Amino acid sequence: MDVGEGTNGEVTAAAGRGTALLTDRYELTMLQAALRSGTAGRRAVFEVFARSLPAGRRYGVVAGTGRILDAIEAFRFGPDELDWLAANGIVDEPTVQWLEKFRFTGNVWGYPEGECYFPESPILRVEGTFAEAVLLETVVLSILNHDCAIASAASRMVQAAQGRPLIEMGSRRAHERSAVASARAAYVAGFATTSNLEAGRLYDVPTAGTSAHSFTLLHDSERHAFEAQLASLGESTTLLVDTYDVERAVRTAVELAGPALGAVRIDSGDLAVMARRVRDQLDSLDARDTRIVVTGDLDEYGIAALAAAPVDGYGVGTSLVTGSGAPTASLVYKLVARADGPDADAPMRPVAKRSSGKPSRGGRKAAVRRVDPHGAAYAETVSTGEPAPGPRDRVLQVPLVRQGEIIGREPLRDARDRHARAVAELPATAVQLSRGEPALPTEFVDDGPRP
Amino acid sequence: MDVGEGTNGEVTAAAGRGTALLTDRYELTMLQAALRSGTAGRRAVFEVFARSLPAGRRYGVVAGTGRILDAIEAFRFGPDELDWLAANGIVDEPTVQWLEKFRFTGNVWGYPEGECYFPESPILRVEGTFAEAVLLETVVLSILNHDCAIASAASRMVQAAQGRPLIEMGSRRAHERSAVASARAAYVAGFATTSNLEAGRLYDVPTAGTSAHSFTLLHDSERHAFEAQLASLGESTTLLVDTYDVERAVRTAVELAGPALGAVRIDSGDLAVMARRVRDQLDSLDARDTRIVVTGDLDEYGIAALAAAPVDGYGVGTSLVTGSGAPTASLVYKLVARADGPDADAPMRPVAKRSSGKPSRGGRKAAVRRVDPHGAAYAETVSTGEPAPGPRDRVLQVPLVRQGEIIGREPLRDARDRHARAVAELPATAVQLSRGEPALPTEFVDDGPRP
Repeated sequence: MDVGEGTNGEVTAAAGRGTALLTDRYELTMLQAALRSGTAGRRAVFEVFARSLPAGRRYGVVAGTGRILDAIEAFRFGPDELDWLAANGIVDEPTVQWLEKFRFTGNVWGYPEGECYFPESPILRVEGTFAEAVLLETVVLSILNHDCAIASAASRMVQAAQGRPLIEMGSRRAHERSAVASARAAYVAGFATTSNLEAGRLYDVPTAGTSAHSFTLLHDSERHAFEAQLASLGESTTLLVDTYDVERAVRTAVELAGPALGAVRIDSGDLAVMARRVRDQLDSLDARDTRIVVTGDLDEYGIAALAAAPVDGYGVGTSLVTGSGAPTASLVYKLVARADGPDADAPMRPVAKRSSGKPSRGGRKAAVRRVDPHGAAYAETVSTGEPAPGPRDRVLQVPLVRQGEIIGREPLRDARDRHARAVAELPATAVQLSRGEPALPTEFVDDGPRP
Repeated sequence: MDVGEGTNGEVTAAAGRGTALLTDRYELTMLQAALRSGTAGRRAVFEVFARSLPAGRRYGVVAGTGRILDAIEAFRFGPDELDWLAANGIVDEPTVQWLEKFRFTGNVWGYPEGECYFPESPILRVEGTFAEAVLLETVVLSILNHDCAIASAASRMVQAAQGRPLIEMGSRRAHERSAVASARAAYVAGFATTSNLEAGRLYDVPTAGTSAHSFTLLHDSERHAFEAQLASLGESTTLLVDTYDVERAVRTAVELAGPALGAVRIDSGDLAVMARRVRDQLDSLDARDTRIVVTGDLDEYGIAALAAAPVDGYGVGTSLVTGSGAPTASLVYKLVARADGPDADAPMRPVAKRSSGKPSRGGRKAAVRRVDPHGAAYAETVSTGEPAPGPRDRVLQVPLVRQGEIIGREPLRDARDRHARAVAELPATAVQLSRGEPALPTEFVDDGPRP
């Protein structure tokens, strides 16, 4: 597939800006040194994993896989990038020449998007020469650390909402491009819609919206504002009722729209009390099908606290795009095995640093979700040998890139469906909001020094 | 200036992807309703401010202004955007036609980039028709909420470092594009360098880097790895010494590089203890000018705790790009005044919502930083009338866009210098890391109903 063509929105968009400089400088200087020392061509295996989940979280959610595939495809050094690298002395001329021809030709395996993960789960594995695999470190981690953090928070909110729809509306509280990725990640985790139009265009996430207080204030009266909105958007629209006085606004809204009014939105006050009052008022006005949408600094705990309130939908902003206290997933990208020499058949050797505090396990790893006869997951097994899944177990890593060719693309809807299944399979404790241990234990099976 | 030409990197880059759909759906549906009700052309004044600073913070830092100007310039609805809006029924045909011709023709005033701000400081003011000003809401807030959050955290780290240089190296912990903006914001706040190459290319932020554990592990021994790095990057490079055994690594490093070795990096362990040991060892090896750079989950508190340690530079990652506990600045974009009718000379009226919990003050506001004869700032005055600055006071809002023309661009270095001056002028309590009240009180002068 040519970059800039094809049907994938992000690839087309990315053609305007490559991803190759979304990279830490040291990746390129390490490349230069390795090219010179003759080690750049050694085969290497890098793995992405989290040493732990954010404090108290019971599972993580893999998201961003599709965006990584787009980023790998767009990872080319064009004339602009190369000129800048050369002019600023970032790397030497032989390295510039190497980068000019660079295209990732390795293999990538990973947990499919939407899957759950746990501490030490090897959620992505990049195999290639050291040179080509080290270059992807920064952009791969950027995407996964962001998107997994957002999806992991979003999934808790979806669980807390117990089937009521969630609108993602945090774009204004996040960097303008991370907002688009957040909307995508929230959709994978089960949000119904997003306010973000670019997420609609790039990723086909369903979009939704209501109106702002400024729209009411623009008009000479709330009545005029409601009339204007109804005339333009129809009676199924959502009217914002808390600019002045909620009770008066609800009365005006139903008077103008009739009982077929789609919904009202409450953005302030004690949402449980307000929702109860508004529900009673709507019912008394025979607007029994008019829904109540609540917004205003909601997070998973605020959503859960409204479980008994007559609420029909939640809008979530800040807490979603900031990962509800865990804005990054703390995933790392570690060299776990490399060849002893430059030849393609040189033996592979597991490697790991031994410094204090941050130990890691060497060797190329496989992972299996253990599932009992009742369909309940009970363990995550990580092994350095070939996986030996039982009849209901799921081998977790799937091929995403084969010899440089992207083979792992899928509709976003598939990731969303997969996530719903993966959470349903976890022990019931997984969806408790209280702080706890990971819902599944990670078990290691060390099959010895084979990488 | 034509979008896609000119010397500004971000504008050129933005040409590949416009900013018009980095917008919440409701902005466009409110536009549609206002076009139909005849209120879209009413003159309007929107202001950006924070109701409060993040808990315990003593000042905020304005950052992102330059990026907002680029985003406004690139805010056009091209055929791709319009086709998508029409095909998906987001807005009706008259609105699509209006958007096709849209270009922002209003005025923007704001605190210059790098300036400090406090609760209720009107850091940006957008004036135009309601239609054109409401459309900018999402992207303006996205940029400011992100960049101000990062710069505000970065400034505290700079103060904690007391003159020692800081390297921004958080790209891998943030969305790949917010990483670039974070590097830019950190530079405004006083960071010396960034690891992010795209920030170097787009914004001329100086870049820096060391090497990773993977580079050492790639080689047959640490000695081979150091030899390779020194051969390629020279003796002024920074060698990472904690892959295996720090003491042995330092000995090997100085043996290979000689006393002119640029620096060593320590990424794990008790950094204060390790730095002391490594300093003693380096001195005993006569490598007295070899610097020590420390990294590893540092935030402003960790930096401050190392004040007495022999550290020559800090690398900061996660805590920087996540705003060190405050990943968004909680800035809002509120309609504060609008015309009574459609004519250009219709009288302006201050407006504000009256719902519970989130009151706001109507009326177009001016702001002045009050400065005493010793050059010390002592108050932030916000008034609905014209400002009346004393001889040393500083009028805070400057023109950024005049009738749609971008007039507020400046070199990023100017914002960085401005920030250093603005912090130096604050009371000494401002730079304490402990939780406290805003360093300056915000005083309101209400000159009555004139907007």
